[in-house]
Amino acid sequence: MDSINKCQREVLVINIGNELLDGLRENGHLLWLGEQLARRGLPITRSVVLRDDAAEISEEIKKSWGKYDLIVTTGGLGPTSDDQTRASIAKVLGLKLQRVDSAAKNLETLFTKIGRKVSPADLSQCTVLEGGESLSNPHGTAPGIFYCDGRTTLVMLPGPILELHPMYENEVIPRLCSIGCASDGEAYVQVRTFGIGAVPLEQIVRPLIIEGMALTFGTHTGIVDARITSGTSGACSKKLCEVAKSIRDAVGDDFVCTGHSCLATIVVEQLRSMEKTIALAESCTGGLLANSFTDIAGASKVFAGSAVCYSNDAKINILGISECLLAQHGAVSAECAEAMAAAATEKFGTDYALSVTGFAGPGGGTDDNPVGTVFIGYATPTGVWSKKVFMHGDRGQVKLRAVNTALDWMRRHITKYGVEDCIRRS
Amino acid sequence: MDSINKCQREVLVINIGNELLDGLRENGHLLWLGEQLARRGLPITRSVVLRDDAAEISEEIKKSWGKYDLIVTTGGLGPTSDDQTRASIAKVLGLKLQRVDSAAKNLETLFTKIGRKVSPADLSQCTVLEGGESLSNPHGTAPGIFYCDGRTTLVMLPGPILELHPMYENEVIPRLCSIGCASDGEAYVQVRTFGIGAVPLEQIVRPLIIEGMALTFGTHTGIVDARITSGTSGACSKKLCEVAKSIRDAVGDDFVCTGHSCLATIVVEQLRSMEKTIALAESCTGGLLANSFTDIAGASKVFAGSAVCYSNDAKINILGISECLLAQHGAVSAECAEAMAAAATEKFGTDYALSVTGFAGPGGGTDDNPVGTVFIGYATPTGVWSKKVFMHGDRGQVKLRAVNTALDWMRRHITKYGVEDCIRRS
Repeated sequence: MDSINKCQREVLVINIGNELLDGLRENGHLLWLGEQLARRGLPITRSVVLRDDAAEISEEIKKSWGKYDLIVTTGGLGPTSDDQTRASIAKVLGLKLQRVDSAAKNLETLFTKIGRKVSPADLSQCTVLEGGESLSNPHGTAPGIFYCDGRTTLVMLPGPILELHPMYENEVIPRLCSIGCASDGEAYVQVRTFGIGAVPLEQIVRPLIIEGMALTFGTHTGIVDARITSGTSGACSKKLCEVAKSIRDAVGDDFVCTGHSCLATIVVEQLRSMEKTIALAESCTGGLLANSFTDIAGASKVFAGSAVCYSNDAKINILGISECLLAQHGAVSAECAEAMAAAATEKFGTDYALSVTGFAGPGGGTDDNPVGTVFIGYATPTGVWSKKVFMHGDRGQVKLRAVNTALDWMRRHITKYGVEDCIRRS
Repeated sequence: MDSINKCQREVLVINIGNELLDGLRENGHLLWLGEQLARRGLPITRSVVLRDDAAEISEEIKKSWGKYDLIVTTGGLGPTSDDQTRASIAKVLGLKLQRVDSAAKNLETLFTKIGRKVSPADLSQCTVLEGGESLSNPHGTAPGIFYCDGRTTLVMLPGPILELHPMYENEVIPRLCSIGCASDGEAYVQVRTFGIGAVPLEQIVRPLIIEGMALTFGTHTGIVDARITSGTSGACSKKLCEVAKSIRDAVGDDFVCTGHSCLATIVVEQLRSMEKTIALAESCTGGLLANSFTDIAGASKVFAGSAVCYSNDAKINILGISECLLAQHGAVSAECAEAMAAAATEKFGTDYALSVTGFAGPGGGTDDNPVGTVFIGYATPTGVWSKKVFMHGDRGQVKLRAVNTALDWMRRHITKYGVEDCIRRS
C-alpha cells in the first residue's frame, strides 16, 4: 500500500492545441495533471505546449521517446482536420492505427440517438496504436490510448475536461499502478496554512523534515502550502504523515488543513458538524464570498444566502442599516461592517454571519482608508466584532484576499470557541 | 501604423518554476502572453515549462538559440537559491552579468524604508547580461532583461504578475516595436459570439475571409470567439476590420462584440449609456452573477446589489416570495424566477433585474427538471419574463453557463428594445 517509487521517473506532459498558445484558453490540464501526477509520485519533469501541427508533434515525440519514462498528451484526438495527434504519433513510432470496434459501436449508438449520420472522419477517432490499449470515454466520442514499449509509457488523453478527468482516474491510474509506474498511495503530504509567509513557514518546516525529503511551497492570495515528498529519503506515507503532524503542532493557529481543502470548505464542515447556519452581507466582495460557499456541493445545509448590497440604498433597504450610521461613519467603517453582520443573522435567521465592506479600487478610498482598506464584520451567537485589514493588489486580488481573510477569521474563531458558542446559546 | 509582419516570426515562451509543474499554481502567464503577443503579430510557436534547474534551463536555451526569433522567459529572477534563470542563461550564452547601479540603488532605498538590510543575495538580482538592457521594475526588486544578438531576441521577465504585466507593456513592447519585431497596431481581429456553435460559426466565417488569412476558434462556456489574423494574405488592419464587419452582419443577433469584452461588461456599458440600473436575485448561481458585475471597475454606477437567497426561507424573508407560490410551483420554476426578478427590482429600486433559480447539482433535481435545469427571470421597465434552459457539466459549469445565458439574454433584449423600454417608462 505504501509503495512509493524510490527512483524518480521522468515525466513529460504535451498539451496540444492552438487555442492554448493564442491566449484563447488557459492550460488548466497542466495544473490538474501536475497535482494528480505528483500525488502518485510522478512529478512532471517538463511540460510542452504545441500547435495542432503534425510535424511539431512528431518531432517532440521522436526526441523524447526513450528519454522519458512517461509521456502524457492532451488534445487533438477529435474528428476534424486539425486533430493531428493520433496519426502523427503513430507515424513517428512506425505503428499502424487499428479500429476499436467497441468505440465505433458506441459512436454509432450515440449518433443514432441524436439523429446524426456517422462519417468516415467521425470513425477515424475510434482507433488505437497497434499493441496499445484503448481507454474508454463514456463522456465523449474519442477514446484515449495507453501504449507501452518497455522504454516509455505513452498516455493519450482527449482535450475536453469532462472527458479527460474521468478517463485519467478510471482508466489511466489503474494501468500506471499495475505496471509499477505510479504509487498506490499518496506520495506527498501537503500542509496548508494561512497568516504566515512562505519564508517564516520554511523556517518552521525545514528542521522538522528528514534528510532527503523534498519541500515545495505554493502561495495563493494569503494561503501558503508546504508540500513534502519523500524525495531521496525513502520515507513511507506513514512517515510523511508524522512529519505533517509535527508541522501542524509547530504552526499552531495558522494551520488550516492537510490536503487541498479550501477555506470555505473547512468553514462549511465546521458549521455542518455543529449544525449551525451562516448568512453574508457583502459590499466590496460583491458576491465572491457567497460564490465561494455555493461552489461547495451540499453548502445549502448551512448557507442561507448573502445580501450583496453595493449601493448605500441597498444597505438601507435590504439590510436595514440606519441612514444615520452611514452618514456618520461611512459605508467603509467598522460600525457599518458590524451592523451588516448583525443584520445578516437577523434577516436570514442564521447563527453566524460574515460581512465585508471596503474599497476594492481602482476608484474610491480616502486618506484614512485608501484603496485596499477592508472592514470585515463577524457575528456569532455570542457577539459581533469587526476588524480592519489592508489588501495589496488590483480589484480582483483585493476581493479574493478579503474573502480568504474573512473565511480564515471564522475558521480560527470556530476552532477556538465554536463549542463554547453552542453551549452559551443553548 | 499598419506594419503587420508579413513573414511569420518564431516565438518560444519558457515559463520557469517548480510550482507550475507540481499543480501548485496555474500557468496564467501563458494565457496572458499568448493573447498579448498574438495582438502584436507574434503568435507563440511553442511553450515550455521547466523546473528551477540550471541544467534544464541551459539546455533549452542552447538548443533554441538562433532557431527562434524571440524567446520570452518568466520566473526565476529573484534572490533565493532556486532562482537559476539569470545565471544559467548568462553561462550558456558565454556572457558576463553586469551590475545595474540604478536597480541596486532602488533596492537599497526600498529596503531602507522597510528597515531591512541588503544582502549580497538581494543585490544579485540587480544584474543584466552584458550588451543587454535592464528593464525597470517599479513594482518589485528584480529588473527584467532585454538582449538581442541579431539572431534571437531574448526577453527575461519576473514571475509575479504585478511585476510582469507593467514591465511587458511599458518596457518590452516599445523595444520590440522599435526593432521591427512586433507590429505597432493590432495584428488580428476577434469576433465574439454567443448562442452559435463553433462549427456553424466556421461555416459563416470561412467564405467571408480572404485567402491566406488564418482563422482560430476559442470557446468558453457558451461564448465562441473567431480570431482572424492576416496570415500569409498580407492584409492590413483596415482589411481585417472590414472582414470583421461582414462577419458581424452575417452573424446577426449572436454577435456580442469585436475584441475581448465579457458579457457583463457589455451589459454594464448598455445600462450606463441608458442611465439605468440593475439588481439580481440569485439562487443556484449563488453570487457568481453578482461577482461578474462587481469584477468590473465602476459597476457601482449601474449595479445596486444581489439577493443571494439559497434557502426557501431567504426567498420568503428577503425577497418576499410568497410561501404559496413556493409550495405550489417549487423554487425551481418559471413562476419563482419571475417573482424573484420582479421582487429584485422593487426591493433594490432598480430599472432592470435578472434572477436565476435551478439545480446546479450534484444533488437535487426532479424527473421533469433534472440537475442542470435552470430558470432565468428577467424584469424590465415594461414587463417580466422567464425562460427555462438546460446546462451540461458539473456544478461549476452549470453556474457559469447560467450566468452567461442570463447576461446574454439581457444583452440581446437591450440591443433590440432598450430604447423602447426607456421611452415607454418615461
